[in-house]
Amino acid sequence: MIIVIKKDSSEKQVKNLISWIESQDLRVHVSTGEYNTVIGLIGDTSKIDADLIEGLDIVESIKKLSESYKKANRKFHPDDTVIDIGGGVKIGGGHFSIMAGPCSVESKEQLTSIATSVKESGATVLRGGAFKPRTSPYDFQGLKAEGIQLLLEAKKQTGLPIVTEIMNINHLDLFENVDIIQVGARNMQNFDLLKELGGTKKPILLKRGLANTLKELLMSAEYIMAGGNENIILCERGIRSFDTFTRNTLDLSAVPMLKEYTHLPVIVDPSHATGISRLVKPMSLAATAAGADGLIIEVHNDPVHALCDGAQSLTPAQFKEVADKVFKLRKVIKD
Amino acid sequence: MIIVIKKDSSEKQVKNLISWIESQDLRVHVSTGEYNTVIGLIGDTSKIDADLIEGLDIVESIKKLSESYKKANRKFHPDDTVIDIGGGVKIGGGHFSIMAGPCSVESKEQLTSIATSVKESGATVLRGGAFKPRTSPYDFQGLKAEGIQLLLEAKKQTGLPIVTEIMNINHLDLFENVDIIQVGARNMQNFDLLKELGGTKKPILLKRGLANTLKELLMSAEYIMAGGNENIILCERGIRSFDTFTRNTLDLSAVPMLKEYTHLPVIVDPSHATGISRLVKPMSLAATAAGADGLIIEVHNDPVHALCDGAQSLTPAQFKEVADKVFKLRKVIKD
Amino acid sequence: MIIVIKKDSSEKQVKNLISWIESQDLRVHVSTGEYNTVIGLIGDTSKIDADLIEGLDIVESIKKLSESYKKANRKFHPDDTVIDIGGGVKIGGGHFSIMAGPCSVESKEQLTSIATSVKESGATVLRGGAFKPRTSPYDFQGLKAEGIQLLLEAKKQTGLPIVTEIMNINHLDLFENVDIIQVGARNMQNFDLLKELGGTKKPILLKRGLANTLKELLMSAEYIMAGGNENIILCERGIRSFDTFTRNTLDLSAVPMLKEYTHLPVIVDPSHATGISRLVKPMSLAATAAGADGLIIEVHNDPVHALCDGAQSLTPAQFKEVADKVFKLRKVIKD
Amino acid sequence: MIIVIKKDSSEKQVKNLISWIESQDLRVHVSTGEYNTVIGLIGDTSKIDADLIEGLDIVESIKKLSESYKKANRKFHPDDTVIDIGGGVKIGGGHFSIMAGPCSVESKEQLTSIATSVKESGATVLRGGAFKPRTSPYDFQGLKAEGIQLLLEAKKQTGLPIVTEIMNINHLDLFENVDIIQVGARNMQNFDLLKELGGTKKPILLKRGLANTLKELLMSAEYIMAGGNENIILCERGIRSFDTFTRNTLDLSAVPMLKEYTHLPVIVDPSHATGISRLVKPMSLAATAAGADGLIIEVHNDPVHALCDGAQSLTPAQFKEVADKVFKLRKVIKD
Repeated sequence: MIIVIKKDSSEKQVKNLISWIESQDLRVHVSTGEYNTVIGLIGDTSKIDADLIEGLDIVESIKKLSESYKKANRKFHPDDTVIDIGGGVKIGGGHFSIMAGPCSVESKEQLTSIATSVKESGATVLRGGAFKPRTSPYDFQGLKAEGIQLLLEAKKQTGLPIVTEIMNINHLDLFENVDIIQVGARNMQNFDLLKELGGTKKPILLKRGLANTLKELLMSAEYIMAGGNENIILCERGIRSFDTFTRNTLDLSAVPMLKEYTHLPVIVDPSHATGISRLVKPMSLAATAAGADGLIIEVHNDPVHALCDGAQSLTPAQFKEVADKVFKLRKVIKD
Repeated sequence: MIIVIKKDSSEKQVKNLISWIESQDLRVHVSTGEYNTVIGLIGDTSKIDADLIEGLDIVESIKKLSESYKKANRKFHPDDTVIDIGGGVKIGGGHFSIMAGPCSVESKEQLTSIATSVKESGATVLRGGAFKPRTSPYDFQGLKAEGIQLLLEAKKQTGLPIVTEIMNINHLDLFENVDIIQVGARNMQNFDLLKELGGTKKPILLKRGLANTLKELLMSAEYIMAGGNENIILCERGIRSFDTFTRNTLDLSAVPMLKEYTHLPVIVDPSHATGISRLVKPMSLAATAAGADGLIIEVHNDPVHALCDGAQSLTPAQFKEVADKVFKLRKVIKD
Repeated sequence: MIIVIKKDSSEKQVKNLISWIESQDLRVHVSTGEYNTVIGLIGDTSKIDADLIEGLDIVESIKKLSESYKKANRKFHPDDTVIDIGGGVKIGGGHFSIMAGPCSVESKEQLTSIATSVKESGATVLRGGAFKPRTSPYDFQGLKAEGIQLLLEAKKQTGLPIVTEIMNINHLDLFENVDIIQVGARNMQNFDLLKELGGTKKPILLKRGLANTLKELLMSAEYIMAGGNENIILCERGIRSFDTFTRNTLDLSAVPMLKEYTHLPVIVDPSHATGISRLVKPMSLAATAAGADGLIIEVHNDPVHALCDGAQSLTPAQFKEVADKVFKLRKVIKD
Repeated sequence: MIIVIKKDSSEKQVKNLISWIESQDLRVHVSTGEYNTVIGLIGDTSKIDADLIEGLDIVESIKKLSESYKKANRKFHPDDTVIDIGGGVKIGGGHFSIMAGPCSVESKEQLTSIATSVKESGATVLRGGAFKPRTSPYDFQGLKAEGIQLLLEAKKQTGLPIVTEIMNINHLDLFENVDIIQVGARNMQNFDLLKELGGTKKPILLKRGLANTLKELLMSAEYIMAGGNENIILCERGIRSFDTFTRNTLDLSAVPMLKEYTHLPVIVDPSHATGISRLVKPMSLAATAAGADGLIIEVHNDPVHALCDGAQSLTPAQFKEVADKVFKLRKVIKD
């Protein structure tokens, strides 16, 4: 860490700061320029609270030289992590996977029908919401435990591993046979939930929060990894910006950037990011071209959609068209 | 709700949509203009999923005519809610309150000393972090249960009611004697936590998330209120924007706007919003002038601050200066 | 336009508003619901100031039913516009074009060398900055008129049409032989400049401002088109968001969305959007996959880059690699 | 400037970078730590292009130690600048001023009536738009030269100095008798316009762009100051954020922060920032409490407002109420 001291700070204040730093088992290297004094900290600075230092009145600014994420950091683990999801499905390190399924699990018929058709189109994981995070307390909150049962039945029938979202630490038992546990964007910094998941061995699908930086996403992955679970798949799913023509702004530069920062696989969710079904195809192709390790796409077959054709979900037929093109594109990218 | 249909939609699609709406126990009012057909929905639209409708291919856009928050809505409860915190302290409806104390609870001496001095300066609630949400798993996570014990002792000694943050549903028992339970910005949409708090009678200090709209903040309040607990204090504490000269962008227009939307009291946290102690004074004054019902301010007396004078916390002496001016200002505002 | 009236408005206020609307040669259609009165405006509402109406105390909100951009609107011009740049180069309607060249024009040797090599790699337009918009008055402001001369010489030698940025209405004469005039992000709402360009017949490359919505971008195109010049190429080049790992956040959903709203061609600038040369390749591929009609990419051959390999520009060899892959991808997309 | 080199950079690349730096008349100070090599640059780094260095592949990040704004920098000019507007009106250094008037100049009667009443309420400058920047080419663009004439007549009648916006370099002659020339948010980085204004001696009211940082605002001030005109008043008028309950997000922390960075006066525009007249009062009070040197407020007396009471403008009576309270508050703040 480098600390830039303000021009007009008193010598005594600077001395006091240096004494305090040295009391933290660190050495300092002071260099005095025309406008500023710069203090370099030598040693293990990971226990220093950067915000505290930066807020000091004599400090103009600080600069961290090492990242706080260690286990997720590609610097220390240069090789891609490959996550083995079971059922022969892998993700990362060249393994590409499409997860598909309905927004909410509604019935056995719905789920089996969708699962069968997305599998035929090349999806390798079945997604479906059992516990639903809803902005309004008056909206449908999901089938909960029953929804997970339906997912497990669909898994038995089709052989597809399943991914579904957890919202409450106390539900962990219900997820025993779930293949990938999803942490939604709103819970990306629910640190107690992350710690709990660190104690399992399950693959975790960790979605980026709506206003979280890539560094914060990696720190949340680090929470899980610090607990011993290194099976993490990161997911870009759109951020909040001033423009609202799509529900969120899909930040595809995050894909190559995350893959530079970390060895973990990175997938993209074009359905939630855009909220508009006719953008799912171009954004799925763009995400694949940007180097994503996979996609998670909503597919439905329910009446209101069938009637009016729409929403953020694709029909099974539309999904097939997207998947076909994605696989063709993926070949060009990999060559 | 009003639904604007795209110009080139087929008559059959529009008919199908209308049939579906009518099957939801709603009536429709269709008006056809030069460029668009507009469908007005008549009846209780609260069960209709607006996102679903908006995503339909034949729908250009929708417009909600009623808000989804009912219990928090000033339309249905015109009078200000006054929250009785106990110990003679009230907030809202003309009652103004300053909550002050250290970022983290560290020791009995620290807490007693700060509590005594902020009380003398006019603070009416003691704040202090026992469970700390930290971006990094390697940072200090708070004294936890022990921290709450220290807060309770300080309460006994000074008579000040206490406010501290909850991060985990399973900790609720520890908060039995806490006067106000804080829900932090990162947990504003941890819906399972909100539901649980709806089952208590405790005053809840609900902080706005970094990327959450005012409407979403009110929907989160509604989650708690729907469970039966209407003792909610809202808190503006800065949002994420492109400019990073302060840690977050303090959005003071939220104060008068929230007070128009809702009858709940609204306070402001200038310490966390700016992250810079020398901005706490001007922003406390500005928040008071904007009509806030109170402030929550960090005050410290620990060595590194004493040495170098800084961070986002004020010293007790600086806090006194801020409080004095705030009370003077408050008089002008109320007149 | 639909106007939603606040619940507690007086009958007299509503009547006054209706009278005023009718005095503007519009008819109204009033429907009164349980919670709100809704006024529909019938007739040509384009002269009504929506902001004014929305700000009225009795108005809860408004909803526009028709877009303010007419000439740029795909509704009224369903077919793709194809811009003929000259020299056999077209863009839009299936014609894909890569524009490439140095950030700043520096010398004849530099420009000829780059122009020759990017042409060999498949670029069809030469880009280069003569007038440079710089945040600091102390930074290099470009070679100006001399820079345009150098571009024109490179055009003569290679046959590549040229694109370069205008910053000042009074420089228009200098652009007489320039093939495409670029309006930079900072000037997207320099309305007097746009009006002036509307009087020419030159193709205009209009870049999206850092904080401008797609609708505002289209309104700026409309300024030029209203003046009689319909040769406009739109360019997505990144927006400002809270995350700063890239210089700006490249908003690729803007590509398919703009192509839905408008018939004008849309290209992408991955160099300026990311500011990081190693992200130019994945983002060029992603933009192509998202359906862009072209790319504008920085290519350099100057010493500091040659020494240290970097910045937002690619070397000619790196550019060849990107272009090759983009053309392969483009084939898959078009099929 | 400090340059942090990536861990895995080759010795040769680092040497090349150092040679290049030294060729720019700078000395270097290299310190090698466990994870990074850090290069400190000694000498006048103002000519170094920071973006170029930061983009180099071997560079992890850079840190500037000196600001690029010199003339606007409080470090080099500790005392507040006081701008003498004429007619006995000053702003800055303890002089507080309210500028008030209509959004658009419409007629002699309108302007005289408003000017007279705002003067009585304590306004010391008359504002009014003659050239109007409008998002749509089809919206009213202002009375232009005639509008300036009407402002000059109102000035003659009331003695109030006037402020109005310039949009085009070629209009400068029309502003000869205008007291303060306003540069609007959309033109904050219209660098050719700023340069031209640097050649005048007129006070300039420079508004912050919707997506511009405080540093960029100061760099734009520096453009004008570098030309010789140091009479600049800065104006915070709201930034773009994800929340749209107000037209823009008024960033009041900018007031104390700018006053720390610069000696120039800082005023606030609550009318344009919020776009809602009933928020003008609380935000005017908040801006004053935050330490602003003045306010610029819209006041109207036209029929549609009179009928329905609203928009972002206040009536003269409402303005009086705001001004009275602002002056009372100002006394408390100054004590």
